[in-house]
Amino acid sequence: MPMSATILYMSMSLDGFITGPNDGPGNAMGDGGMALHGWLWANAKPDDDPMVAVSKLTGANKKIVDKFMASGAVVAGRGTYEGAHGWDGDHHGGAPMFIFTTHDRPDWAKDWPLAHFSDDLAAIMRDAKAAAGDRDVMVHGAGLVQEALRLGLLDEIVIHLTPMLLGAGRSLFEEIGEKIDLERVQVIEGEGGVTHLHYRVKR
Amino acid sequence: MPMSATILYMSMSLDGFITGPNDGPGNAMGDGGMALHGWLWANAKPDDDPMVAVSKLTGANKKIVDKFMASGAVVAGRGTYEGAHGWDGDHHGGAPMFIFTTHDRPDWAKDWPLAHFSDDLAAIMRDAKAAAGDRDVMVHGAGLVQEALRLGLLDEIVIHLTPMLLGAGRSLFEEIGEKIDLERVQVIEGEGGVTHLHYRVKR
Repeated sequence: MPMSATILYMSMSLDGFITGPNDGPGNAMGDGGMALHGWLWANAKPDDDPMVAVSKLTGANKKIVDKFMASGAVVAGRGTYEGAHGWDGDHHGGAPMFIFTTHDRPDWAKDWPLAHFSDDLAAIMRDAKAAAGDRDVMVHGAGLVQEALRLGLLDEIVIHLTPMLLGAGRSLFEEIGEKIDLERVQVIEGEGGVTHLHYRVKR
Repeated sequence: MPMSATILYMSMSLDGFITGPNDGPGNAMGDGGMALHGWLWANAKPDDDPMVAVSKLTGANKKIVDKFMASGAVVAGRGTYEGAHGWDGDHHGGAPMFIFTTHDRPDWAKDWPLAHFSDDLAAIMRDAKAAAGDRDVMVHGAGLVQEALRLGLLDEIVIHLTPMLLGAGRSLFEEIGEKIDLERVQVIEGEGGVTHLHYRVKR
Protein backbone atom coordinates (compact mmCIF):
# COMPACT_ATOMS: atom_id res chain seq x y z
CA MET A 1 0.00 0.00 0.00
CA PRO A 2 1.46 3.41 -0.91
CA MET A 3 2.32 5.53 2.10
CA SER A 4 0.84 8.99 2.35
CA ALA A 5 3.58 11.64 2.16
CA THR A 6 3.63 15.18 3.50
CA ILE A 7 4.68 17.37 0.55
CA LEU A 8 5.53 21.05 0.72
CA TYR A 9 4.46 22.98 -2.38
CA MET A 10 5.75 26.55 -2.66
CA SER A 11 6.46 29.07 -5.41
CA MET A 12 9.90 30.56 -4.77
CA SER A 13 12.15 33.02 -6.58
CA LEU A 14 15.74 32.08 -7.41
CA ASP A 15 16.84 34.22 -4.46
CA GLY A 16 14.68 32.17 -2.11
CA PHE A 17 11.71 34.47 -1.45
CA ILE A 18 8.09 33.32 -1.25
CA THR A 19 6.61 36.79 -0.73
CA GLY A 20 7.68 40.31 -1.52
CA PRO A 21 8.51 42.70 1.34
CA ASN A 22 5.87 43.98 3.78
CA ASP A 23 3.71 40.87 3.70
CA GLY A 24 0.92 40.72 6.25
CA PRO A 25 -2.85 41.06 6.66
CA GLY A 26 -4.30 42.53 3.46
CA ASN A 27 -1.00 42.01 1.62
CA ALA A 28 -0.57 38.25 1.83
CA MET A 29 2.01 37.99 -0.96
CA GLY A 30 3.87 41.17 -0.01
CA ASP A 31 4.76 44.02 -2.37
CA GLY A 32 5.14 42.61 -5.87
CA GLY A 33 4.99 39.04 -4.59
CA MET A 34 2.07 38.03 -6.80
CA ALA A 35 4.66 37.69 -9.58
CA LEU A 36 5.67 34.43 -7.88
CA HIS A 37 2.25 33.03 -8.80
CA GLY A 38 2.38 34.35 -12.35
CA TRP A 39 2.85 30.82 -13.70
CA LEU A 40 -0.62 29.90 -12.39
CA TRP A 41 -2.04 32.62 -14.66
CA ALA A 42 -0.04 31.50 -17.74
CA ASN A 43 -3.16 31.00 -19.87
CA ALA A 44 -5.58 33.20 -17.91
CA LYS A 45 -6.67 36.81 -17.86
CA PRO A 46 -5.06 38.92 -15.12
CA ASP A 47 -8.38 39.41 -13.33
CA ASP A 48 -9.40 35.76 -13.48
CA ASP A 49 -10.24 34.16 -10.15
CA PRO A 50 -7.43 31.78 -9.05
CA MET A 51 -9.56 28.69 -9.57
CA VAL A 52 -10.54 29.85 -13.05
CA ALA A 53 -6.91 30.66 -13.89
CA VAL A 54 -5.74 27.25 -12.72
CA SER A 55 -8.43 25.49 -14.75
CA LYS A 56 -6.89 26.99 -17.92
CA LEU A 57 -3.41 25.57 -17.29
CA THR A 58 -1.88 23.12 -19.73
CA GLY A 59 1.14 20.85 -19.95
CA ALA A 60 3.58 20.44 -17.08
CA ASN A 61 2.06 23.22 -14.99
CA LYS A 62 -1.35 21.57 -15.16
CA LYS A 63 0.15 18.23 -14.08
CA ILE A 64 1.73 19.79 -11.01
CA VAL A 65 -1.45 21.58 -10.00
CA ASP A 66 -3.50 18.43 -10.60
CA LYS A 67 -1.08 16.59 -8.31
CA PHE A 68 -1.44 18.92 -5.36
CA MET A 69 -5.16 19.35 -5.92
CA ALA A 70 -5.44 15.58 -5.50
CA SER A 71 -4.03 15.79 -1.97
CA GLY A 72 -6.25 14.23 0.69
CA ALA A 73 -5.56 16.91 3.30
CA VAL A 74 -3.99 20.35 3.58
CA VAL A 75 -1.61 21.60 6.28
CA ALA A 76 -0.90 25.33 6.48
CA GLY A 77 0.32 27.96 8.87
CA ARG A 78 -1.95 30.64 10.27
CA GLY A 79 -0.51 33.43 8.10
CA THR A 80 -1.13 31.42 4.96
CA TYR A 81 -4.61 30.41 6.06
CA GLU A 82 -5.65 33.92 7.00
CA GLY A 83 -3.97 35.45 3.94
CA ALA A 84 -6.12 33.18 1.79
CA HIS A 85 -9.18 33.93 3.97
CA GLY A 86 -9.39 30.24 4.76
CA TRP A 87 -9.89 29.42 1.09
CA ASP A 88 -13.54 30.35 1.78
CA GLY A 89 -13.97 27.20 3.78
CA ASP A 90 -12.77 24.64 1.23
CA HIS A 91 -9.24 24.51 -0.23
CA HIS A 92 -10.31 21.88 -2.76
CA GLY A 93 -12.80 19.05 -2.96
CA GLY A 94 -13.70 18.94 0.71
CA ALA A 95 -10.17 18.06 1.87
CA PRO A 96 -9.75 18.68 5.61
CA MET A 97 -7.41 21.55 6.51
CA PHE A 98 -5.09 21.48 9.50
CA ILE A 99 -3.88 24.92 10.56
CA PHE A 100 -0.79 25.33 12.71
CA THR A 101 -1.51 28.18 15.12
CA THR A 102 -1.56 29.13 18.77
CA HIS A 103 -4.76 31.12 18.14
CA ASP A 104 -8.32 29.88 18.33
CA ARG A 105 -10.50 29.47 15.27
CA PRO A 106 -11.18 32.94 13.79
CA ASP A 107 -14.79 34.12 14.06
CA TRP A 108 -15.10 34.37 10.30
CA ALA A 109 -14.26 30.66 10.03
CA LYS A 110 -16.75 29.44 12.62
CA ASP A 111 -19.05 27.82 10.03
CA TRP A 112 -16.24 26.10 8.13
CA PRO A 113 -15.93 22.63 9.66
CA LEU A 114 -13.21 21.45 7.26
CA ALA A 115 -10.64 23.56 9.13
CA HIS A 116 -8.96 22.30 12.32
CA PHE A 117 -6.65 24.39 14.51
CA SER A 118 -3.78 23.22 16.68
CA ASP A 119 -0.39 24.35 17.98
CA ASP A 120 0.99 20.78 17.93
CA LEU A 121 2.63 20.28 14.54
CA ALA A 122 3.38 16.60 15.12
CA ALA A 123 -0.29 15.95 15.92
CA ILE A 124 -1.34 18.00 12.90
CA MET A 125 0.84 15.97 10.55
CA ARG A 126 -0.35 12.70 12.08
CA ASP A 127 -4.01 13.71 11.84
CA ALA A 128 -3.56 15.03 8.29
CA LYS A 129 -1.98 11.77 7.17
CA ALA A 130 -4.77 9.79 8.79
CA ALA A 131 -7.40 11.97 7.12
CA ALA A 132 -5.68 11.71 3.74
CA GLY A 133 -5.74 7.92 3.76
CA ASP A 134 -3.60 6.71 0.85
CA ARG A 135 -3.47 10.19 -0.68
CA ASP A 136 -0.73 12.73 0.04
CA VAL A 137 -0.83 15.72 2.37
CA MET A 138 -0.24 19.13 0.82
CA VAL A 139 1.81 21.41 3.07
CA HIS A 140 1.83 25.13 2.35
CA GLY A 141 3.35 28.20 3.97
CA ALA A 142 6.74 29.20 5.33
CA GLY A 143 5.86 29.66 8.98
CA LEU A 144 5.82 25.96 9.70
CA VAL A 145 8.48 24.72 7.28
CA GLN A 146 11.43 25.17 9.59
CA GLU A 147 9.70 23.47 12.50
CA ALA A 148 8.44 20.67 10.25
CA LEU A 149 11.97 20.05 8.95
CA ARG A 150 13.51 20.20 12.42
CA LEU A 151 10.98 17.70 13.75
CA GLY A 152 11.41 15.41 10.74
CA LEU A 153 7.76 15.83 9.74
CA LEU A 154 8.26 16.80 6.10
CA ASP A 155 8.66 13.97 3.58
CA GLU A 156 8.98 15.81 0.27
CA ILE A 157 9.50 19.30 -1.13
CA VAL A 158 8.19 20.65 -4.45
CA ILE A 159 9.51 24.11 -5.32
CA HIS A 160 7.95 25.99 -8.20
CA LEU A 161 11.11 27.94 -9.01
CA THR A 162 10.06 31.16 -10.72
CA PRO A 163 12.38 32.89 -13.21
CA MET A 164 13.15 36.00 -11.20
CA LEU A 165 15.14 37.50 -8.40
CA LEU A 166 12.56 39.11 -6.15
CA GLY A 167 15.15 41.18 -4.30
CA ALA A 168 13.49 41.17 -0.88
CA GLY A 169 10.71 39.50 1.07
CA ARG A 170 10.15 36.45 3.23
CA SER A 171 12.69 33.62 2.79
CA LEU A 172 11.25 30.13 2.59
CA PHE A 173 14.01 28.37 4.47
CA GLU A 174 15.92 31.17 6.25
CA GLU A 175 18.49 29.52 8.50
CA ILE A 176 17.29 26.07 9.47
CA GLY A 177 20.54 25.62 11.37
CA GLU A 178 21.35 22.09 10.30
CA LYS A 179 22.27 20.37 7.07
CA ILE A 180 19.53 18.23 5.56
CA ASP A 181 20.23 16.07 2.53
CA LEU A 182 17.68 15.84 -0.24
CA GLU A 183 17.15 13.31 -3.00
CA ARG A 184 16.12 14.74 -6.36
CA VAL A 185 12.96 12.97 -7.49
CA GLN A 186 12.05 14.93 -10.59
CA VAL A 187 12.65 18.21 -12.40
CA ILE A 188 9.92 19.50 -14.70
CA GLU A 189 10.21 22.56 -16.94
CA GLY A 190 6.87 24.34 -16.93
CA GLU A 191 5.60 26.94 -19.38
CA GLY A 192 6.53 30.53 -18.65
CA GLY A 193 9.95 29.68 -17.25
CA VAL A 194 8.83 28.08 -13.98
CA THR A 195 10.81 24.96 -13.02
CA HIS A 196 9.22 22.42 -10.69
CA LEU A 197 11.88 20.85 -8.46
CA HIS A 198 10.75 17.77 -6.57
CA TYR A 199 12.92 16.44 -3.72
CA ARG A 200 12.58 13.76 -1.06
CA VAL A 201 13.89 14.68 2.41
CA LYS A 202 16.52 12.16 3.50
CA ARG A 203 16.51 10.99 7.10
CA MET B 1 29.71 37.47 -34.44
CA PRO B 2 28.65 35.99 -31.08
CA MET B 3 28.79 38.44 -28.22
CA SER B 4 30.83 37.55 -25.19
CA ALA B 5 28.59 37.13 -22.12
CA THR B 6 29.42 37.50 -18.44
CA ILE B 7 28.14 34.31 -16.79
CA LEU B 8 27.96 33.67 -13.07
CA TYR B 9 28.66 30.04 -12.14
CA MET B 10 27.94 29.07 -8.53
CA SER B 11 27.10 25.93 -6.57
CA MET B 12 24.18 26.74 -4.28
CA SER B 13 22.05 24.75 -1.84
CA LEU B 14 18.25 24.80 -2.16
CA ASP B 15 18.19 27.24 0.76
CA GLY B 16 20.42 29.65 -1.14
CA PHE B 17 23.79 29.19 0.55
CA ILE B 18 27.13 29.08 -1.27
CA THR B 19 29.23 28.43 1.83
CA GLY B 20 28.62 26.96 5.25
CA PRO B 21 28.84 29.22 8.32
CA ASN B 22 32.11 30.77 9.51
CA ASP B 23 33.66 31.13 6.06
CA GLY B 24 36.84 33.16 5.87
CA PRO B 25 40.60 32.83 5.52
CA GLY B 26 41.59 29.17 5.90
CA ASN B 27 37.95 28.09 5.70
CA ALA B 28 36.93 29.32 2.24
CA MET B 29 33.83 27.14 1.94
CA GLY B 30 32.76 27.54 5.58
CA ASP B 31 31.87 24.72 7.95
CA GLY B 32 30.52 21.80 5.93
CA GLY B 33 30.36 23.92 2.79
CA MET B 34 32.54 21.58 0.72
CA ALA B 35 29.40 19.45 0.34
CA LEU B 36 28.24 22.07 -2.18
CA HIS B 37 31.09 20.98 -4.45
CA GLY B 38 30.43 17.28 -3.94
CA TRP B 39 29.10 16.98 -7.48
CA LEU B 40 32.56 17.88 -8.82
CA TRP B 41 33.90 14.78 -7.05
CA ALA B 42 31.13 12.49 -8.36
CA ASN B 43 33.60 10.09 -9.97
CA ALA B 44 36.70 10.98 -7.96
CA LYS B 45 38.36 9.92 -4.74
CA PRO B 46 37.74 12.25 -1.79
CA ASP B 47 41.39 13.28 -1.64
CA ASP B 48 41.74 13.91 -5.37
CA ASP B 49 42.98 17.35 -6.35
CA PRO B 50 40.12 19.48 -7.76
CA MET B 51 41.55 19.42 -11.27
CA VAL B 52 41.95 15.64 -11.14
CA ALA B 53 38.42 15.25 -9.78
CA VAL B 54 36.97 17.43 -12.52
CA SER B 55 38.82 15.49 -15.22
CA LYS B 56 36.91 12.36 -14.16
CA LEU B 57 33.46 13.90 -14.63
CA THR B 58 31.08 12.44 -17.17
CA GLY B 59 27.75 13.33 -18.75
CA ALA B 60 25.95 16.57 -17.97
CA ASN B 61 28.33 17.58 -15.18
CA LYS B 62 31.29 17.28 -17.54
CA LYS B 63 29.52 19.41 -20.14
CA ILE B 64 28.92 22.21 -17.64
CA VAL B 65 32.49 22.18 -16.39
CA ASP B 66 33.81 22.08 -19.97
CA LYS B 67 31.67 25.12 -20.71
CA PHE B 68 33.02 27.29 -17.92
CA MET B 69 36.57 26.01 -18.43
CA ALA B 70 36.29 27.32 -22.00
CA SER B 71 35.72 30.87 -20.70
CA GLY B 72 38.15 33.43 -22.08
CA ALA B 73 38.51 35.34 -18.80
CA VAL B 74 37.62 34.99 -15.13
CA VAL B 75 36.11 37.64 -12.85
CA ALA B 76 36.09 36.99 -9.10
CA GLY B 77 35.87 38.80 -5.81
CA ARG B 78 38.77 39.07 -3.44
CA GLY B 79 37.43 36.53 -0.96
CA THR B 80 37.00 33.94 -3.69
CA TYR B 81 40.42 34.68 -5.15
CA GLU B 82 42.20 34.49 -1.81
CA GLY B 83 40.19 31.46 -0.67
CA ALA B 84 41.43 29.64 -3.77
CA HIS B 85 44.97 31.03 -3.24
CA GLY B 86 44.74 32.69 -6.62
CA TRP B 87 44.30 29.31 -8.31
CA ASP B 88 48.09 29.13 -8.05
CA GLY B 89 48.41 31.78 -10.70
CA ASP B 90 46.29 30.21 -13.44
CA HIS B 91 42.57 29.42 -13.14
CA HIS B 92 42.62 27.52 -16.43
CA GLY B 93 44.51 27.64 -19.70
CA GLY B 94 46.12 31.02 -19.18
CA ALA B 95 42.83 32.93 -19.02
CA PRO B 96 43.31 36.39 -17.50
CA MET B 97 41.74 36.91 -14.08
CA PHE B 98 40.13 40.15 -12.99
CA ILE B 99 39.75 40.48 -9.22
CA PHE B 100 37.29 42.94 -7.70
CA THR B 101 38.98 44.37 -4.61
CA THR B 102 39.96 47.61 -2.91
CA HIS B 103 43.24 45.97 -1.84
CA ASP B 104 46.51 45.88 -3.73
CA ARG B 105 47.88 42.72 -5.27
CA PRO B 106 48.80 40.31 -2.44
CA ASP B 107 52.52 39.64 -2.01
CA TRP B 108 52.07 35.95 -2.69
CA ALA B 109 50.59 36.80 -6.09
CA LYS B 110 53.32 39.17 -7.20
CA ASP B 111 54.73 36.75 -9.80
CA TRP B 112 51.34 35.83 -11.26
CA PRO B 113 50.78 38.24 -14.15
CA LEU B 114 47.47 36.71 -15.25
CA ALA B 115 45.74 38.36 -12.27
CA HIS B 116 44.58 41.98 -12.41
CA PHE B 117 43.18 43.92 -9.44
CA SER B 118 40.67 46.76 -9.47
CA ASP B 119 37.87 48.29 -7.38
CA ASP B 120 35.93 49.38 -10.49
CA LEU B 121 33.57 46.56 -11.37
CA ALA B 122 32.35 48.18 -14.59
CA ALA B 123 35.94 48.50 -15.82
CA ILE B 124 36.65 44.91 -14.75
CA MET B 125 33.73 43.56 -16.74
CA ARG B 126 34.63 45.65 -19.77
CA ASP B 127 38.29 44.57 -19.66
CA ALA B 128 37.33 40.94 -19.07
CA LYS B 129 35.03 40.95 -22.10
CA ALA B 130 37.72 42.55 -24.21
CA ALA B 131 40.25 39.96 -23.07
CA ALA B 132 37.84 37.09 -23.68
CA GLY B 133 37.24 38.08 -27.29
CA ASP B 134 34.40 35.97 -28.62
CA ARG B 135 34.53 33.64 -25.62
CA ASP B 136 32.47 34.12 -22.47
CA VAL B 137 33.55 35.54 -19.13
CA MET B 138 33.24 33.29 -16.11
CA VAL B 139 32.10 35.19 -13.00
CA HIS B 140 32.56 33.54 -9.62
CA GLY B 141 31.96 34.56 -6.02
CA ALA B 142 29.15 36.16 -4.04
CA GLY B 143 30.84 39.39 -2.98
CA LEU B 144 30.42 41.02 -6.36
CA VAL B 145 27.14 39.47 -7.49
CA GLN B 146 24.86 42.04 -5.93
CA GLU B 147 26.87 44.97 -7.30
CA ALA B 148 27.13 43.32 -10.73
CA LEU B 149 23.36 42.84 -10.85
CA ARG B 150 22.63 46.36 -9.63
CA LEU B 151 24.93 47.85 -12.25
CA GLY B 152 23.50 45.64 -15.01
CA LEU B 153 26.87 43.97 -15.58
CA LEU B 154 25.78 40.34 -15.35
CA ASP B 155 24.39 38.74 -18.51
CA GLU B 156 23.67 35.16 -17.41
CA ILE B 157 23.47 33.01 -14.28
CA VAL B 158 24.24 29.29 -14.01
CA ILE B 159 23.36 27.79 -10.64
CA HIS B 160 24.57 24.31 -9.79
CA LEU B 161 21.67 23.56 -7.44
CA THR B 162 22.86 20.93 -4.97
CA PRO B 163 20.37 18.51 -3.38
CA MET B 164 20.60 19.76 0.19
CA LEU B 165 19.52 22.38 2.67
CA LEU B 166 22.75 23.67 4.14
CA GLY B 167 20.98 25.34 7.06
CA ALA B 168 23.32 28.32 7.43
CA GLY B 169 26.14 30.15 5.67
CA ARG B 170 26.62 32.89 3.12
CA SER B 171 23.61 33.62 0.88
CA LEU B 172 24.38 34.08 -2.80
CA PHE B 173 21.82 36.77 -3.45
CA GLU B 174 20.84 38.08 0.01
CA GLU B 175 18.58 41.08 -0.53
CA ILE B 176 19.35 42.69 -3.87
CA GLY B 177 16.55 45.14 -3.17
CA GLU B 178 14.96 45.18 -6.60
CA LYS B 179 13.10 42.69 -8.76
CA ILE B 180 15.07 41.33 -11.71
CA ASP B 181 13.37 39.11 -14.27
CA LEU B 182 15.20 36.10 -15.65
CA GLU B 183 14.69 34.04 -18.77
CA ARG B 184 15.22 30.31 -18.39
CA VAL B 185 17.73 29.16 -21.00
CA GLN B 186 18.27 25.55 -19.99
CA VAL B 187 17.85 23.09 -17.13
CA ILE B 188 20.20 20.11 -16.99
CA GLU B 189 19.94 17.25 -14.50
CA GLY B 190 23.47 16.24 -13.51
CA GLU B 191 24.59 13.03 -11.86
CA GLY B 192 24.47 12.97 -8.07
CA GLY B 193 21.34 15.10 -7.83
CA VAL B 194 22.84 18.43 -8.89
CA THR B 195 20.62 20.46 -11.23
CA HIS B 196 22.22 23.07 -13.48
CA LEU B 197 19.87 26.04 -13.91
CA HIS B 198 20.85 28.44 -16.67
CA TYR B 199 19.14 31.85 -16.86
CA ARG B 200 19.59 35.02 -18.90
CA VAL B 201 19.22 38.29 -16.98
CA LYS B 202 16.51 40.43 -18.58
CA ARG B 203 17.11 44.14 -18.93
